[in-house]
Amino acid sequence: MEIKVLENILKANDAIALENAKLFEERGLFAINMMGSPGSGKTTVLEMTVKMLEGKRNVAVIEGDISTTIDAERLIKYGIPVIQITTETFGGTCHLDANMVGRAFDKIPTAYAADLLCVENVGNLVCPAGFRLGTEKNVLVLSVTEGEDKPLKYPAMFRNSDILLLNKIDLLRHLEYDMEKLREAVRQINPTLCIVPLSAKSGEGAGGWIEWLEEGIRSRKGAAHS
Amino acid sequence: MEIKVLENILKANDAIALENAKLFEERGLFAINMMGSPGSGKTTVLEMTVKMLEGKRNVAVIEGDISTTIDAERLIKYGIPVIQITTETFGGTCHLDANMVGRAFDKIPTAYAADLLCVENVGNLVCPAGFRLGTEKNVLVLSVTEGEDKPLKYPAMFRNSDILLLNKIDLLRHLEYDMEKLREAVRQINPTLCIVPLSAKSGEGAGGWIEWLEEGIRSRKGAAHS
Repeated sequence: MEIKVLENILKANDAIALENAKLFEERGLFAINMMGSPGSGKTTVLEMTVKMLEGKRNVAVIEGDISTTIDAERLIKYGIPVIQITTETFGGTCHLDANMVGRAFDKIPTAYAADLLCVENVGNLVCPAGFRLGTEKNVLVLSVTEGEDKPLKYPAMFRNSDILLLNKIDLLRHLEYDMEKLREAVRQINPTLCIVPLSAKSGEGAGGWIEWLEEGIRSRKGAAHS
Repeated sequence: MEIKVLENILKANDAIALENAKLFEERGLFAINMMGSPGSGKTTVLEMTVKMLEGKRNVAVIEGDISTTIDAERLIKYGIPVIQITTETFGGTCHLDANMVGRAFDKIPTAYAADLLCVENVGNLVCPAGFRLGTEKNVLVLSVTEGEDKPLKYPAMFRNSDILLLNKIDLLRHLEYDMEKLREAVRQINPTLCIVPLSAKSGEGAGGWIEWLEEGIRSRKGAAHS
């Protein structure tokens, strides 16, 4: 009985996600769903990304949090459209769903020709993995301070991700971190997952991430023009 | 409709939690529910705790993870009873519930006179806060690498906790961390929450935590004898 209800919810969510995906395609924008634990550095990665793409690409952001507009405030100062979803309005759920994202996207001015839409999900390494939003790619942010065993312990999230940003590498010299152990754990769960070690604070390693985004933006625009 | 189903689930959970609480009381043990983000250091805190109480108090552990027995293996080497719950057996849920904990507790030999039962919840700063387990106190582990704004962004978890272990203070000298900002955020959400800064790695600051546990164990034993 419970499972049936859950299945219905997921089916309804998937239908809305499909509508979102069509809308993003029509608008010719590349949309990503950024996920990760609380404090993994998702918003700092976004700040860095917006700064690095400034003057080159139009970025729009949808921020997901249970409470507060702290993250949106960090991003609005870059002069881009930022829509905050606080899930406490929806019962305090632990993840974004397609309906929330669709309604938030409607608030981004249509006059703004976004190339890239970044959706920052609620900080949670478990639940967001189960809800499609209509975004094209899933981006996982994991910080090195979280340890090397997380792919094995949170397999669904790592299985569903297209790129892993291994953040806070500026702290590596202060930690006993075994990078090969992390790579081996990722291989066990998702052998094709692309790992990009970087520091959103110092910008080290960010080139590969920006190139990956540019690739996504270009291929979306190519599709729209064909 | 959905909310009704959820309410029924929560009511059923609370009834089982009450049974667990009675059982823990009868057995004269102090039970805690340890929660926190993935990688906040819950298992390392547990390892430190078991070592510091060795020869003084009998500790039993219930480990909650979605997948793997990695955490249980880290603890079993101390020669104490450790029961692992992997929630993938229960559909991969993002939190422990009272039924899982009750069933795991049944597997701890009754001949083992535990003074302290530590339940380590699934790494998640959101969902575990909503499910009572029957434990007497909620312990929240937050690492300083997660930033100062988490109490405001995850208010339910901070509101429901009895003690906050602010972990990884050995990394403070490498971070720009504003301890007063964290304290102010905690005050806004839960003014009476006790904050214990510590390093589970170096043991610095752990005395206050062990004293808090001893207080809980003593008061539980006092109640059982009265």
